[in-house]
Amino acid sequence: MRSPSAKRVSQSLSAHNIKALFNSVEAFLFDCDGVIWKGDKLIDGVPQTLDMLRSKGKKLIFVTNNSSKSRRQYANKFHSVGLSVAEDEIFSSSFAAAMYLKVNNFPPEKKVYVIGGEGILEELQLAGYTGLGGPEDGEKRVQLKSNYLFQHDNSVGAVVVGLDPNINYYKLQYGTLCIRENPGCLFIATNRDAVGHMTDLQEWPGAGCMVAAMCGSTEREPIVVGKPSTFIMEFLLKKFQIDTSRMCMVGDRLDTDILFGQNAGCRTLLVLSGVTTQSTLENPANNIQPDYYTSQVSDILELLGH
Amino acid sequence: MRSPSAKRVSQSLSAHNIKALFNSVEAFLFDCDGVIWKGDKLIDGVPQTLDMLRSKGKKLIFVTNNSSKSRRQYANKFHSVGLSVAEDEIFSSSFAAAMYLKVNNFPPEKKVYVIGGEGILEELQLAGYTGLGGPEDGEKRVQLKSNYLFQHDNSVGAVVVGLDPNINYYKLQYGTLCIRENPGCLFIATNRDAVGHMTDLQEWPGAGCMVAAMCGSTEREPIVVGKPSTFIMEFLLKKFQIDTSRMCMVGDRLDTDILFGQNAGCRTLLVLSGVTTQSTLENPANNIQPDYYTSQVSDILELLGH
Repeated sequence: MRSPSAKRVSQSLSAHNIKALFNSVEAFLFDCDGVIWKGDKLIDGVPQTLDMLRSKGKKLIFVTNNSSKSRRQYANKFHSVGLSVAEDEIFSSSFAAAMYLKVNNFPPEKKVYVIGGEGILEELQLAGYTGLGGPEDGEKRVQLKSNYLFQHDNSVGAVVVGLDPNINYYKLQYGTLCIRENPGCLFIATNRDAVGHMTDLQEWPGAGCMVAAMCGSTEREPIVVGKPSTFIMEFLLKKFQIDTSRMCMVGDRLDTDILFGQNAGCRTLLVLSGVTTQSTLENPANNIQPDYYTSQVSDILELLGH
Repeated sequence: MRSPSAKRVSQSLSAHNIKALFNSVEAFLFDCDGVIWKGDKLIDGVPQTLDMLRSKGKKLIFVTNNSSKSRRQYANKFHSVGLSVAEDEIFSSSFAAAMYLKVNNFPPEKKVYVIGGEGILEELQLAGYTGLGGPEDGEKRVQLKSNYLFQHDNSVGAVVVGLDPNINYYKLQYGTLCIRENPGCLFIATNRDAVGHMTDLQEWPGAGCMVAAMCGSTEREPIVVGKPSTFIMEFLLKKFQIDTSRMCMVGDRLDTDILFGQNAGCRTLLVLSGVTTQSTLENPANNIQPDYYTSQVSDILELLGH
């Protein structure tokens, strides 16, 4: 008999439980890094699985914390690996950052300083905003010498921080000055993933690294727009109009994907093809338990007997 | 009448209270950045004040969280600005990091990866350790592409993180891999200052920025050896043999200098010539109150009527 205080335990996805899950779900929400691909390499069996799901009338939605690309750039990436995914099926944290400014009536005459990739700048532009920084500040250097004053733009009203493999002291000082010295300047994080599969062979520091750096220098906490925040869900619901209880979030991270799914009221499926191992899942210190877990996305196909 | 729960309030240093402080103190401990100098510029009246203190038989000790220099390099900097200070009067967080490894019997055959300046590498070498990284990794770049495996040295047993104006993704990945993948690898922070006067005209992100970045990617907390940790005090006591109640810590930061002084049982004097303003000191959200505060070090000289 299960005691009332028993900890919720994940079920391994199996031929026995997959039918009920499959039948109760209208939309599958997929994380990308560690789920669909690792770096530029597709994970085995993904195309066949997505094809089968579409053929059964399931909606496919891609929700990624990786802010390096815009929705348009993500659609291109999907095409380049042979997957047909439309721009409006993709909800990236770069898009979420621009939408956060939009719904909060951020004044278009104010500028946005970006510590992160081209994707954030593109989404800002599409939303009608002027972005500064990003890749073009990647090679800038500072000189720590007498009488040198580092100048920043006083009209910056928000700093957006995402994954930035070209992080440097110039950008850190620029963002820090904006947040500390421009009155009311917003500090927005696309996400706080500690690490991610930026390449197929290994994990690298994620946006959580750059965001933490800015927290360290500004002594401020950011507004997080990516997972596990459910901010993006309202845009997704507007497009798909499916009750979240009939969605299943599929992801490789407990503290972003699975927590996002749970926060939003979705079913949740952890795949072990990314950053989370089975021993992390089963570690007593872990208190985020997905409804189901399995080794990779293509298990859905196999377990359904296709 | 003061109620028992009244918050301790700092006294402005004055002609009335300075004599008692001066007479009860045998050693003045000075922070450097924002107290002695800003960037490369001496703060007005410092040489005359230090001369007067020495002439009255006070011991002068310099305790700095800035890890960019070794003790030897700091002694050179003091000389270059016209102050005569000996190496063994200087206790830098670079020295503290090396001493932490020493007193904890860190095996000399293990290596130490450094995110920070030359000063840390020099102190490690003087303590008999092999440092990697530091300035020479400042221009290294990574390629996020398929089949590229970022290699790190498995014999690294500690990562030391300090202020690093040449921070980049290469160093962040190197340090992250060591901490996450080398069993038992230590994560040591020289200090966690949010910002500091790296130049005379403005503040810049401090070691707290780089340390936080590493916390963000590793999801680990560091061992802090600089202020407000009192780790360095045992070395200082060994040399000077003065009871801490007869020391006065003079600094510009509440959360490092003043907290260090209080943690160690010293008298404390905040100077407003660095990162802390009077309004920060008096803000109800601030719960660190020094015994005394004054605008700058030379007030000691003036108030004593010299």
